Amino acid sequence: MESVPSRLSLQSLARASLPSLSRPSLPSPSLLLLHRRLTAFSVALPSFARKQSLAASPLRPFAALSEQSDLSEHTAAIIDGKLISKQIKDEIASEISRMKDAIGIVPGLAVILVGTRKDSQTYVRNKKKGCELVGITSHEALLPEDASEEDVLRLVSGFNDDPSVHGILVQLPLPKHMNEGKVMDAISIYKDVDGFHPLNVGYLAMQGKNPLFVPCTPKGCLELLSRSGINIEGKRAVVIGRSNIVGIPAALLLQKQNATVSIIHSKTKDPEKITREADIIIAAAGVPNLVRGSWIKPGAVVIDVGINPVNDPTAPRGYNLVGDVCFDEACKVASAITPVPGGVGPMTIAMLLSNTLDSAKRMHNFK
Amino acid sequence: MESVPSRLSLQSLARASLPSLSRPSLPSPSLLLLHRRLTAFSVALPSFARKQSLAASPLRPFAALSEQSDLSEHTAAIIDGKLISKQIKDEIASEISRMKDAIGIVPGLAVILVGTRKDSQTYVRNKKKGCELVGITSHEALLPEDASEEDVLRLVSGFNDDPSVHGILVQLPLPKHMNEGKVMDAISIYKDVDGFHPLNVGYLAMQGKNPLFVPCTPKGCLELLSRSGINIEGKRAVVIGRSNIVGIPAALLLQKQNATVSIIHSKTKDPEKITREADIIIAAAGVPNLVRGSWIKPGAVVIDVGINPVNDPTAPRGYNLVGDVCFDEACKVASAITPVPGGVGPMTIAMLLSNTLDSAKRMHNFK
Repeated sequence: MESVPSRLSLQSLARASLPSLSRPSLPSPSLLLLHRRLTAFSVALPSFARKQSLAASPLRPFAALSEQSDLSEHTAAIIDGKLISKQIKDEIASEISRMKDAIGIVPGLAVILVGTRKDSQTYVRNKKKGCELVGITSHEALLPEDASEEDVLRLVSGFNDDPSVHGILVQLPLPKHMNEGKVMDAISIYKDVDGFHPLNVGYLAMQGKNPLFVPCTPKGCLELLSRSGINIEGKRAVVIGRSNIVGIPAALLLQKQNATVSIIHSKTKDPEKITREADIIIAAAGVPNLVRGSWIKPGAVVIDVGINPVNDPTAPRGYNLVGDVCFDEACKVASAITPVPGGVGPMTIAMLLSNTLDSAKRMHNFK
Repeated sequence: MESVPSRLSLQSLARASLPSLSRPSLPSPSLLLLHRRLTAFSVALPSFARKQSLAASPLRPFAALSEQSDLSEHTAAIIDGKLISKQIKDEIASEISRMKDAIGIVPGLAVILVGTRKDSQTYVRNKKKGCELVGITSHEALLPEDASEEDVLRLVSGFNDDPSVHGILVQLPLPKHMNEGKVMDAISIYKDVDGFHPLNVGYLAMQGKNPLFVPCTPKGCLELLSRSGINIEGKRAVVIGRSNIVGIPAALLLQKQNATVSIIHSKTKDPEKITREADIIIAAAGVPNLVRGSWIKPGAVVIDVGINPVNDPTAPRGYNLVGDVCFDEACKVASAITPVPGGVGPMTIAMLLSNTLDSAKRMHNFK
């Protein structure tokens, strides 16, 4: 779950071509806050990107970049997911407060965690923090590793029936002795805030239909685009990776917003050439630094969903987090890009909170 | 339903570029039965197409084509949907007979027709004929145009509960006073032989999941490819049109079989350029002669789902049926192509019968 897609695909491609897997260093936080002069910015970009950049208002943080002494070297705008997700959480908090005042209802999110995986515990803790921040009541159910599938199904069923719960999330992966699909399918589609239920996926795929919930990470990707003033209709989009959690729903979402979408996966021949045709790239392959500068059309917008730990003995934790996109190279070609971390990552929880609020509003018919 | 997709999209594109909407004449039936010498054939085709053609066995009718005096002018192989669908119906009939002998079960298909639309009546009649041919019991329910939605829902519910019915099909379009989505969603997914239920669409979209039923026309397209010895994995495929009945499920199917898929639609810029990148083209836009020769990469395989009536005072019925692909031009570039009529059309009913048989087998656990 979260923004970590499967690592099964495209691995070999990356290995063949990459000189170093260490994370290119991000501009320092202070530089990230500097806004580049639009005049200089617009000179460096092709017209497609230029129009969009100029359209971005200060309220829509198509956030700014490291200043450069040599303006001939192009640097992409950084799409600041941390900042945008904070704005979204503020909006959610204000809506929740308005709903509570008006009808006395507080949205509730139930999280079921089985076992003691550290990464899962971290995710669940972050979700709980996010709930507290915006005023969502958090219901937590912790089960031991050796709990039975029936135990989990009983919990799901209880939360399905509980009117104070508006969203249910089962932290994946579940222990191997459980059937994940069966557990996920047991969640009421009215509380499926992860958007993983096949009915919701079906509605996402169909023209003229809308799912009750859209999966959080791809929804976050499109929110980053929209809040950065980037138009999707008519653009060529390439999604790299086809996981059920990110790639497939991201492609379906882009398609619903009238992009012309191609999905690249492990069996794709010449992914570099196809990616280079795209105005918008969503990289969700789970392969560190897969997308090189040469893969990117000048002026394209790059959303990097990858968040891959790569060993680095000099790093404080012994590893760095690296995206699917070679950031330094991409910066020289793209018109805008999300950093890792601080890009798509923070959006996933913001979208989970947003889905939970939407669910509570829908159940109580609150506009 | 059937192989007639929505005509809403891409109309303007076709109008802009097409000199004449009259149907290019097909080779005469006798010519269609002639087999071209493979030696000559292989000289004219690029290696991708050549391998496939040579791989096609007589039992897999990558059927052959008009002989030409001038061998330097390339002519695509005709994928003979009439012949292939007949083979499939023969296989179904033999399976049904085996099942009847073994467990005494005969598959049943229920068709609900509301009103007196001529095209719908024709489709229903053809379905009935198809059932008779292979030994499926046909249950027909005819309702007047002014029947209520509840009447239809009651019929659906009855067929859902009837153990002698293994497939239910509601002929579309329904009269305007009915909610088609509501009626379709009422069909048990275990009897949804059209494969239009959002749950089936969801499973079709998801990696690692399989729908109970795949929509008949796109399933027919892929069956034509597979029975013509055309490999899909790793190929670039373009689907033109994004209807829920053909375009979207066709793209999802190709993607499941590891093609790299792009969907082209009315908002796509430069569809000609994108289509020209494809090894496999499925045209389902509902626009007569939209796909010109210049849209097709030499050696590509073209599946034409379009079946558009175009006025022609000299034709016996006052109109001709025309595909979405400019047949004469495409023949000179493609390695293989389906004709209209006689290509995808006959496959739709064959796949409906196949889905009904599969349903009966699944319900009675007959292998």
